[in-house]
Amino acid sequence: MTNKLMIVVSKGTLDMAYPPLILGQIAASLGMEVGLFFTFWGLDVIRKDKVDKLKVSPVGNPSMGMPNILGIIPGMTDLATWMMKKKAAQIGMKPIREMIKECKELGVKFYACSNTMEMMGLKREDLLDEVDDVVGATAFLNMASEDSIVMFI
Amino acid sequence: MTNKLMIVVSKGTLDMAYPPLILGQIAASLGMEVGLFFTFWGLDVIRKDKVDKLKVSPVGNPSMGMPNILGIIPGMTDLATWMMKKKAAQIGMKPIREMIKECKELGVKFYACSNTMEMMGLKREDLLDEVDDVVGATAFLNMASEDSIVMFI
Amino acid sequence: MTNKLMIVVSKGTLDMAYPPLILGQIAASLGMEVGLFFTFWGLDVIRKDKVDKLKVSPVGNPSMGMPNILGIIPGMTDLATWMMKKKAAQIGMKPIREMIKECKELGVKFYACSNTMEMMGLKREDLLDEVDDVVGATAFLNMASEDSIVMFI
Repeated sequence: MTNKLMIVVSKGTLDMAYPPLILGQIAASLGMEVGLFFTFWGLDVIRKDKVDKLKVSPVGNPSMGMPNILGIIPGMTDLATWMMKKKAAQIGMKPIREMIKECKELGVKFYACSNTMEMMGLKREDLLDEVDDVVGATAFLNMASEDSIVMFI
Repeated sequence: MTNKLMIVVSKGTLDMAYPPLILGQIAASLGMEVGLFFTFWGLDVIRKDKVDKLKVSPVGNPSMGMPNILGIIPGMTDLATWMMKKKAAQIGMKPIREMIKECKELGVKFYACSNTMEMMGLKREDLLDEVDDVVGATAFLNMASEDSIVMFI
Repeated sequence: MTNKLMIVVSKGTLDMAYPPLILGQIAASLGMEVGLFFTFWGLDVIRKDKVDKLKVSPVGNPSMGMPNILGIIPGMTDLATWMMKKKAAQIGMKPIREMIKECKELGVKFYACSNTMEMMGLKREDLLDEVDDVVGATAFLNMASEDSIVMFI
């Protein structure tokens, strides 16, 4: 097994917020060093005003099985999101904000992309307290050592 | 060259089902050890009831060049899917189900994510016979060794 | 730090065109060897007729905060794209075509996927001059050595 997991989190949807946190949590439990780098839409996952409102889109996602003509109806995104949260809760998965806390307790490091923050006009105080640092992509690449597993989600 | 390719397959669309299978097939042909871990929407690719019905969405995908106002019209997703399958067939690409069989014959391992299966209420018999095992993300991370190429698709 | 970064670029939207080019540019500045392999929709990023017209979709992307019922209105994709380009320019980010040139000057290698080109009926002259070679996935996998960081975007 390798000893480091570095994940670039670039998506801000609920369905794509789970994988980096699940993988991060498990990897940290296994004793791996874990760093999550939130960039572009991924910043939503660590924004105070958005973390509890992440959504899954039924539009443009054939896997959800909802015709696009229905998916665009106001309320359908909320419905799909509510259903996913319910199913996740049924198997014991915690809300995103709690998963972030648990990851943090296990030693997972949270990094916010400085460039994207500037682009979106965000300040440090807009982000969750769990965020360890605001860094550039240079820092992220420097953290990835030869034996790291690196993923772009 | 490294000797192991591990891919997390998280998308259930036709266009994103091709890359892991193409890469898996080629890597196995080159003598690499290959493991595909199907999770979230990616499970669709190895579900008996869905593998032949994967679709590509013209909505929310500017690369397809179809205005969203047209893309939402019923039948447009099927049309886009039909076109992609036709183009793929023209260059000798096999349907997904056959690509899976060929990967399997080359030694590619197929793993289904136990958590997602529970969340979606799926059983082992809902999945293709080619699936080697139902495992957790822990097992997947343990399989990735230092010299693995790991991708999240 | 590892010495090689290999990225599969599979998306053709403006928002997902930035990450591989930003990461590639930074990695090359740090002295890393960088190879970008453009496949599926990712080919749009290096197509002469598309590179300046990449778009970001407000539909099916809850992070943009625009209801799908509005997002499908003709012109909304162009509006979202214009806004993203404006914000990017405000923090000094260059247009995609210029980022490609700068990457190239830093030694980043650009590869186009031969299979996808055949599927889409594209010829070498349809691609930017900056493209180094048209290769198959086999070549890409062979280029990834043990100490490479590999990402699929």
